[in-house]
Amino acid sequence: MKKAVVLLSGGLDSATVMAMAQADGYEIYAISFHYGQRHSMELDCAIEQAKGRAKEHKMVDIDLGSFGGSALTADINVPKHDHIDELTPSIPVTYVPARNTVFLSYALAWAEVLDASDIFIGVNALDYSGYPDCRPEFIEAYERMANLATVAGIEGRNLKIHAPLIEMTKAEIIHQGLALGVDYAKTTSCYDPAPNGYSCGHCDSCLLRLKGFKDAGEKDPHPYIEN
Amino acid sequence: MKKAVVLLSGGLDSATVMAMAQADGYEIYAISFHYGQRHSMELDCAIEQAKGRAKEHKMVDIDLGSFGGSALTADINVPKHDHIDELTPSIPVTYVPARNTVFLSYALAWAEVLDASDIFIGVNALDYSGYPDCRPEFIEAYERMANLATVAGIEGRNLKIHAPLIEMTKAEIIHQGLALGVDYAKTTSCYDPAPNGYSCGHCDSCLLRLKGFKDAGEKDPHPYIEN
Repeated sequence: MKKAVVLLSGGLDSATVMAMAQADGYEIYAISFHYGQRHSMELDCAIEQAKGRAKEHKMVDIDLGSFGGSALTADINVPKHDHIDELTPSIPVTYVPARNTVFLSYALAWAEVLDASDIFIGVNALDYSGYPDCRPEFIEAYERMANLATVAGIEGRNLKIHAPLIEMTKAEIIHQGLALGVDYAKTTSCYDPAPNGYSCGHCDSCLLRLKGFKDAGEKDPHPYIEN
Repeated sequence: MKKAVVLLSGGLDSATVMAMAQADGYEIYAISFHYGQRHSMELDCAIEQAKGRAKEHKMVDIDLGSFGGSALTADINVPKHDHIDELTPSIPVTYVPARNTVFLSYALAWAEVLDASDIFIGVNALDYSGYPDCRPEFIEAYERMANLATVAGIEGRNLKIHAPLIEMTKAEIIHQGLALGVDYAKTTSCYDPAPNGYSCGHCDSCLLRLKGFKDAGEKDPHPYIEN
């Protein structure tokens, strides 16, 4: 059975990607990161998602928070909005510097030890257009670098970075995940959840998620503060 | 003053690179990693090297050891040889999967927060010809990827990965470092040092270092077990 390393955040996108990789016949090696996020709910969700789908789930502590520079890891307020039209197209303060580069690099290290040639990541260029490391050209450049960085590349095995959601709308992602049995109640996207685990409903990520469910004609099973 | 992030291992090469970056007029932000090495002497050396040269020295704990797969981080014996001619051209067991990719990714994250456009790494393609991530084509591909991964790249600032030692012989590196006042007594290259800090003199890295000093016509000031 071919092995795949899957970056699993506990969010809607990565849960869907893991289900897609499993449906493609891969044996799943899921990897999640505690990277100085201000809340740990997404890691609880990652653990729930990995159950029954992943052969192994590795949780790695990394130290990006010590660099600062993002509302997700430092003491900067997460912006809240009443409506999705208020989202600006510039780099959001929630951008964590080089985050996907660091995450993929750990996945690459693990893939090399596992002798896996496939890495899956749930980046999306439409929803996260302000994040440089969610663009197709980044994924392509990473894949090219990865093939030069590793023994697999030297030996002619082709390392592939799969980003199957990259051009999908949130509604398409949700339809895909529901068809594959993803339990979205056990995923979270909120940048600033309440202590009881309820999502705020007003950060960029909540607004994108709620619009996705609305466009998909489905109800988000995850609890929100004002639901 | 322009800022540079310098990967500093505590070895001979990275100490030399830091001195070269300083001589080029950069303000130095050194970064070292505790990545599950079986000994910590190289980090002690990194701290000594950073004194007086680095504006800031960040020590980051990373979890590569949990992936296994290398004699430097797992319970695999470090090979010992009587003579440098015994070194084989294949991938050595001391290769740590994706190590330089992971290290550069942390450097990239820090560079982005610091607004630095320059990262220095002491890779060398001659001595470490068995390591895929010490080759010029890897460094070029990493730089290209880094410019797509970051806000700096989007905004048209050019991120540069400097690998000034990549085509130098060990003897040339030593001459360069001595000219810049590097104290090589406070660097270590040994993969398997004795508890008192003495180098073994017989691992691949010690043999390459000793040959470098011999070729340079200099005496290695670092203590060896059998000296």
